[in-house]
Amino acid sequence: MNIKSLRSLRLFACPARAVFALKALVLTAPIITCADEGMWLFNNPPRKLLQEKYGFEPSDAWLEHLQKSSVRFNSGGSGSFVSEDGLALSNHHVGADALQKFGDKDHNYIRDGFYARTRAEEKRCLDLELNVLMSIEDVTARVNEAVKPDATPEQAFLARRAVMAGIEKESLDKTGLRSDVVTLYQGAQYHLYRFKKYTDVRLVFAPEQQIAFFGGDPDNFEYPRYNLDICLFRAYEDGHPAKIPHHLSWSKAGAADNELVFVSGHPGRTSRLLTVAELEYVRDVMLPTRLERLKNTEVLLAAYSERSEENARRAREDFLRTQNSRKALDGELAGILDPTFIADKKKVEQTLKEAAADTAKFPDAAGAWDRIAQAQQVVEKNNKRFNVLEGRQSFNSQLYGIARTLLRAGEERPKPNAERLREFGEAGRESLEFQLFSEKPIYDDLEQLTLADSLTYLVKQLGYGDPLVQQVLAGKSPRERASELVLGTKVKSVELRKRLYQEGAKAVAAAHDPMIELASLVDPEARSLRKIVEEQDEIKQQAHAQIGKVRFAVMGTSQYPDATFTLRLAFGVVKGYEENGQHIPFETKFAGLYQRAGEQKNRSPFDLPERWTKRESHLDLKTPFNFVNTADIIGGNSGSPVVNRKGEFVGIIFDGNIQSLVGDFYYTEVQSRALAVHSQGIIEALRKLYDAGALADELQAGIGARTASSAHRTAAQ
Amino acid sequence: MNIKSLRSLRLFACPARAVFALKALVLTAPIITCADEGMWLFNNPPRKLLQEKYGFEPSDAWLEHLQKSSVRFNSGGSGSFVSEDGLALSNHHVGADALQKFGDKDHNYIRDGFYARTRAEEKRCLDLELNVLMSIEDVTARVNEAVKPDATPEQAFLARRAVMAGIEKESLDKTGLRSDVVTLYQGAQYHLYRFKKYTDVRLVFAPEQQIAFFGGDPDNFEYPRYNLDICLFRAYEDGHPAKIPHHLSWSKAGAADNELVFVSGHPGRTSRLLTVAELEYVRDVMLPTRLERLKNTEVLLAAYSERSEENARRAREDFLRTQNSRKALDGELAGILDPTFIADKKKVEQTLKEAAADTAKFPDAAGAWDRIAQAQQVVEKNNKRFNVLEGRQSFNSQLYGIARTLLRAGEERPKPNAERLREFGEAGRESLEFQLFSEKPIYDDLEQLTLADSLTYLVKQLGYGDPLVQQVLAGKSPRERASELVLGTKVKSVELRKRLYQEGAKAVAAAHDPMIELASLVDPEARSLRKIVEEQDEIKQQAHAQIGKVRFAVMGTSQYPDATFTLRLAFGVVKGYEENGQHIPFETKFAGLYQRAGEQKNRSPFDLPERWTKRESHLDLKTPFNFVNTADIIGGNSGSPVVNRKGEFVGIIFDGNIQSLVGDFYYTEVQSRALAVHSQGIIEALRKLYDAGALADELQAGIGARTASSAHRTAAQ
Repeated sequence: MNIKSLRSLRLFACPARAVFALKALVLTAPIITCADEGMWLFNNPPRKLLQEKYGFEPSDAWLEHLQKSSVRFNSGGSGSFVSEDGLALSNHHVGADALQKFGDKDHNYIRDGFYARTRAEEKRCLDLELNVLMSIEDVTARVNEAVKPDATPEQAFLARRAVMAGIEKESLDKTGLRSDVVTLYQGAQYHLYRFKKYTDVRLVFAPEQQIAFFGGDPDNFEYPRYNLDICLFRAYEDGHPAKIPHHLSWSKAGAADNELVFVSGHPGRTSRLLTVAELEYVRDVMLPTRLERLKNTEVLLAAYSERSEENARRAREDFLRTQNSRKALDGELAGILDPTFIADKKKVEQTLKEAAADTAKFPDAAGAWDRIAQAQQVVEKNNKRFNVLEGRQSFNSQLYGIARTLLRAGEERPKPNAERLREFGEAGRESLEFQLFSEKPIYDDLEQLTLADSLTYLVKQLGYGDPLVQQVLAGKSPRERASELVLGTKVKSVELRKRLYQEGAKAVAAAHDPMIELASLVDPEARSLRKIVEEQDEIKQQAHAQIGKVRFAVMGTSQYPDATFTLRLAFGVVKGYEENGQHIPFETKFAGLYQRAGEQKNRSPFDLPERWTKRESHLDLKTPFNFVNTADIIGGNSGSPVVNRKGEFVGIIFDGNIQSLVGDFYYTEVQSRALAVHSQGIIEALRKLYDAGALADELQAGIGARTASSAHRTAAQ
Repeated sequence: MNIKSLRSLRLFACPARAVFALKALVLTAPIITCADEGMWLFNNPPRKLLQEKYGFEPSDAWLEHLQKSSVRFNSGGSGSFVSEDGLALSNHHVGADALQKFGDKDHNYIRDGFYARTRAEEKRCLDLELNVLMSIEDVTARVNEAVKPDATPEQAFLARRAVMAGIEKESLDKTGLRSDVVTLYQGAQYHLYRFKKYTDVRLVFAPEQQIAFFGGDPDNFEYPRYNLDICLFRAYEDGHPAKIPHHLSWSKAGAADNELVFVSGHPGRTSRLLTVAELEYVRDVMLPTRLERLKNTEVLLAAYSERSEENARRAREDFLRTQNSRKALDGELAGILDPTFIADKKKVEQTLKEAAADTAKFPDAAGAWDRIAQAQQVVEKNNKRFNVLEGRQSFNSQLYGIARTLLRAGEERPKPNAERLREFGEAGRESLEFQLFSEKPIYDDLEQLTLADSLTYLVKQLGYGDPLVQQVLAGKSPRERASELVLGTKVKSVELRKRLYQEGAKAVAAAHDPMIELASLVDPEARSLRKIVEEQDEIKQQAHAQIGKVRFAVMGTSQYPDATFTLRLAFGVVKGYEENGQHIPFETKFAGLYQRAGEQKNRSPFDLPERWTKRESHLDLKTPFNFVNTADIIGGNSGSPVVNRKGEFVGIIFDGNIQSLVGDFYYTEVQSRALAVHSQGIIEALRKLYDAGALADELQAGIGARTASSAHRTAAQ
């Protein structure tokens, strides 16, 4: 891929953007984004753009319905409600974390799939939580008022944290809803998001991973694709299927070529509003460091997995997540290393700086870029120690994570809500406890392996002679130390966790647990590093708020903030693209799946599940399977519903193509595409291959049809 | 594995060693190594030790026969002559480099194996060279005399290089043999090694890689094992099979339990005589940096290989070599991170330092350790730039390697022999040309991938803003730049290489080849870094020579130097060991192979070649397949013959177990074992599975039997 030419095309494919480059016009011309760009806030949707480009105006009711039909998975993905009886649809790779947790050496649900033919068979997940966004409230003024103009960064940070915790607590008490204050536009705005929570979530259906992730890592981020990357759960309340007022109706035809579509989901993180100084840090420090760790972990888990099938099962989810992140970050790094990208960024920044020089209009903004650059330097200086100690890069162990949570809970919970570390705030308490008391299996061998490996990394990063390193290793080699810690700790016991959590700091100390004692050894410096970084974040946030005002003035208020794993609306058109002189069609069909498997001689990861080979003749091979569209998505959007103008479900996002990976830094619609499973493909597979007609009926017509079709299902078996 | 307890056991299993720890006795008590330790020089074999421990005294004739039957492969391994008509036996993984080079998309000799049923079918390798050590001469005095006592390090280095090149050239002219001056004991001794060279080497037999490397990376460095890791070549001279006066006879029974055996091969590198300062550098800088690069490359090649079978074929050898090195270095790092190891080293060093304080006896040695430590600091300071520029970590491309060789050849060849960079000396000229003009295939896609990746590493290591980085990238992203270089260079043409090499520097410059121009851009700094590092090496070498004298005085002259990929003699006993409370027997049998494949459900890399499944019944399943012994080996020993007291071939080394990986730093015989293929297993497989009775006859009885058995072979088919 030639990134540079892509980007050049993008910039000049849009006349309004090209104009933007002409500095003279900048301050007067409103910026019209004419590409299908943007991860828009539901309370600031691109109404004008949609109207002008597509003649479509979403009504408030349309927006509310889509918003409340959308679901966030705490395992790190998106989804949607697709029946009034609580069916929630997401990707297999979003659900895999839950599938993994109730597997054991005799049950491999990830590999083999699962279908609950009756409600009674639906399997309750150990710690899966679903969140539905119920309302958004702009609390920027209230947050900013709490920060005195003459406050030091530390005071400002504490004041901000306090007021945010206060707003969250107040909202929780008042509404009973999970309430999070979300930082947007790098700190230019603060919105209060209220979520309805579902913690009794049960698995209904998952296909075999072979078909959900057909083509594996080699085909990941590629297109054409042939993946049935879906997973169905059901939300329960009080032991019964939850009644869901807002859920998506199934489109009869599904996505069609050139159709306008919308994607409602939770993009995780983008870096489009960062300053040049911040981007350089991302390019020179953050991405290379993260990639080094990811590649190390990928090799570690691959070698472990190859030793036996059981090992492979235990590590599978971590392994795939690692591969996926590695491929994504490699793509991001390649994108950001394009020198024209930073050059363009510098030009835009220069334009904003010149506008900011008008101190009458913008009293605080002039030095904002320098303040960010200085803060970035402080972060960079502390980066290594922060990552290994607070960021836990050198304690890659679930048991260590639990130990630290117990230790910190003991210290934080007695404090006033406003003064706690954010993750121990009252607003997040239930979710925290839900995770901490999860019965998910923890494997000693894998824990020892990852801990020994990450302790070796500790030595590499801080140096063998570092006093803390010496204390952590306690006179042993990383392997010996990891072994002694993992085999010695008692925090594997959920009962013990509950007791220590309830009884607090004294009980935690009295337990003399080696893993907790290790966390305790590391914690003073980890906390102090966190404080430094949070202070710099505060400085950056204030500066970004000031830059934000300039940007709003120069470019208009119709802008979307960088992604923050909160609900966003994207839009685009279903369409193919050109690559290496070839036209890539907008959709694939089942026939293509069998062709690709054949070309690759059915070798792993291009081998099909037995069901798919044996029952090929049951399928209508012309049924659409996957399709692409131009919507602006990124990691975290996995599982997002794709809907048409009527708000009907036409597909589910499961990936972006390799050209979309630069999306962390800029949007391009020339070749960049969002990949989705087609609604028709889902129904065809459920009915013809999985004998899940009842489930298909529920998706297509609500629960009423389910009973009726049971006879049909039985007959088909 | 508990490294610490292993080492403690080792130290005290040997009374003489335990005594050594008692400082008072050190200067008077001779050191008797009573373990099966050592990679001994053929001109300083452990006669006394063998006599005392095993009642065996190797005669000069016995030693000469074994030495001259041993073969070094320029692809980085060992081997032996096993017939008078030039049959040379090594490992499949040593021969794989040659196999790979004459494969294409229709022929995969690595995967499918090869057997030349007639001489005419024997396939000439593109650039495989075999060396046989003909003589060793101690030239320490002559080398040292050339270095004036008051010379600066640079002068000393140049003088040493000049005298070494002179000795080599003189020897080459006189004998016609490849002549290398080898630095031993870190510079305490210099020996002149003369080699007979074979460059017309033809492939005779290779099994399928599935059985040569059964168990793949998961079973690599593990035991029990079931690998037919062999490959047979034939040396030719003047178009006819070479007549080989010294070759090994095949033992009828092969290796037996508790038998004394010898290993003659080329261990690559050990670090047993390094000072504490040097070891700390290995631990803190060298191993972590190399591992980071290896893991990065492993992920890169794995992802590339997974895209198609042809990709997998192209990358296979690099990929396996990378995995193998990664596993070995991970093991070394784990070993060196055992804190008791460095603590013990410090004690020994202290003892030597105290002896060195006697300046009457040792006039130069007192400050030697400090001089090494200081030199090490200079090396460390220049390490990053040296590795990426001179060490080519950031130019991972065969084409770049060729371009740089052409560039440097143009500059070096007109100089007097003594002043050239060592690799351009007359002594190595033929071998260099043999490599440079090799017709081995180079794949554009793989070249672009590895070059783009390593240019990205260049940015990471030196920083985006570094002026040289900017010049190297020439305003492009690493991907674009790699693409332009690989597609633009003409050095793929062997004809062009020959012309530029013959015509010299002017022609090289006039070619305006982009890859040569890149090498030319990098070369000034690369050369100056090399100069710095070589000066420090000189300082260290002088200091080590001084320490060496102390060590010889304290510990006696019966010592072996660190490994240098030159021929060494190791010895040991065929025996099993205890692991996790279980006894691991000394040998495995064919039956175990089928059992292991079954346990792993024949999934890759535990799947057997069709021949092995179909013809299982042909085999006597009780035939020994692999076995272990206590000989002191390390990487580079791959393919080394294992012989008995009579000097007969009883097996071939192909690996060490995971406990042997600490062998880079110290020897232990408690669990550490060398792994070998049993001579009986080789014959059984050749005769019963590969219908290669003629070849087996040649191995067992010389060429005479070959014709006779052809009828038998045909009948068996």
